[in-house]
Amino acid sequence: MTTSVPSPDTPASSPIPATAAVLVIGDEILSGRTKDQNIAVLAKFLRTHGLDLIEVRIIPDHTKTIKDTVNGLRARADLVICTGGIGPTHDDRTAASIAQAFSQPLIEHDEALAAMQAYYESRGQDLNEGRRKMATVPEGASLITNPLTIAPGFKIGNVIALAGVPSIMQAMLEGVIPYLPAGAPPRSITVRCDLPESVIAAALAQIDDHWPAVTIGSYPKDPAGDILQVDVVLTSREADSLAKACQEAEDKISALGGTPRVLES
Amino acid sequence: MTTSVPSPDTPASSPIPATAAVLVIGDEILSGRTKDQNIAVLAKFLRTHGLDLIEVRIIPDHTKTIKDTVNGLRARADLVICTGGIGPTHDDRTAASIAQAFSQPLIEHDEALAAMQAYYESRGQDLNEGRRKMATVPEGASLITNPLTIAPGFKIGNVIALAGVPSIMQAMLEGVIPYLPAGAPPRSITVRCDLPESVIAAALAQIDDHWPAVTIGSYPKDPAGDILQVDVVLTSREADSLAKACQEAEDKISALGGTPRVLES
Repeated sequence: MTTSVPSPDTPASSPIPATAAVLVIGDEILSGRTKDQNIAVLAKFLRTHGLDLIEVRIIPDHTKTIKDTVNGLRARADLVICTGGIGPTHDDRTAASIAQAFSQPLIEHDEALAAMQAYYESRGQDLNEGRRKMATVPEGASLITNPLTIAPGFKIGNVIALAGVPSIMQAMLEGVIPYLPAGAPPRSITVRCDLPESVIAAALAQIDDHWPAVTIGSYPKDPAGDILQVDVVLTSREADSLAKACQEAEDKISALGGTPRVLES
Repeated sequence: MTTSVPSPDTPASSPIPATAAVLVIGDEILSGRTKDQNIAVLAKFLRTHGLDLIEVRIIPDHTKTIKDTVNGLRARADLVICTGGIGPTHDDRTAASIAQAFSQPLIEHDEALAAMQAYYESRGQDLNEGRRKMATVPEGASLITNPLTIAPGFKIGNVIALAGVPSIMQAMLEGVIPYLPAGAPPRSITVRCDLPESVIAAALAQIDDHWPAVTIGSYPKDPAGDILQVDVVLTSREADSLAKACQEAEDKISALGGTPRVLES
């Protein structure tokens, strides 16, 4: 689960894709003060690397809630990515809570401390108590590099903790890649059509029945607006089923009087 | 819980605020295809009306997952707002799943059907099978009006289901207000300062200890950037504690060499 290099006898694309959950930790998202910008980035990142995102949660900076949620999610998903709560202040409770979830003590990580000491010294600043806090991780955790502001994220078991500030979270993602399970992303084909959703609904339900390996989503472009456009998105890891389901969608939309357009996405 | 008019002996502002959870239902959010735009709007809406948003979840269009998640959340929060999955196609499973969660049959709602029939007739369109599906709700549910495209949301017990398309979801919110429990929003004061988070961290932890009725969040403005600005956000329903905690924050920031600025938010 934690290796990116498949052994020679592992197929490049596993028939059972690895699953992921995202846990956003922060009072400021729940209060409406701050608009989350990390979920969409992580959803795309995980898909690109072949993981199926099965759930996202947003919870407050509350130790027991974080601990219990991490324990619930890490039992259900192959990988859990947390964002937020690893800064220097009292309301940053993610590292301590994840340590509790894994029944590990919270320790100062020597390597993190040394990197931060060098960083702050070079800026003529002290490594004060708040900054030292950002070098604490659950015992046994590996560091995730932070190329922007040095204070690292970490990985323990199948749980990865990243910063909540979007620019820093994104800069840390490079350091997450080596820990991702190997997997190929599913392929999606969009059949765009000019009929209302309700007119194609029965046809889509039939295609959905015919091709169990294909997921079919129907996404209207602003149903309240004047432009009639529905994107039928077919997704699968089975190329043959996907192609045939796509052909069936084109045929059925044409038979209903529409003009399907196939877009690769 | 479902009345907006407090009885004469109910204080206008309850000391225990009502809680809410938001459940976003949609494969397209988890796949990264669509960026959620509803969570931030709902977070602000709930706060404005005095509810504490305690959790957000994003889950796929999967019947059992929706049913189980709705049942989990409605037991823990006073109000659950769901978005998505109430359209005409096979992948719209929210109404059927919530019906299962409440052990109710899914029925065609006469009033919804009549409104939709009139709407589509006026546009010279049929009330086809897909459109009829949008008039189905769990038995016993009340309708939430959709002023844009008529197909309604609904409320059953403490669960409200709204559309996923942001413009329609927002248009439905007016119809949610009568169902909100009475409550006053907490008040927040921001003390903006020009010191790094790590320098004020110990002071904030002390203030947090001194004022248990006040929640204190610390939000740096892009820690990777050049501008040194941290917003210390103090939030409480107790005006006296809030004012004193705010004064303590100003005093401590000044004592550390900073220049605090108080902003009402």
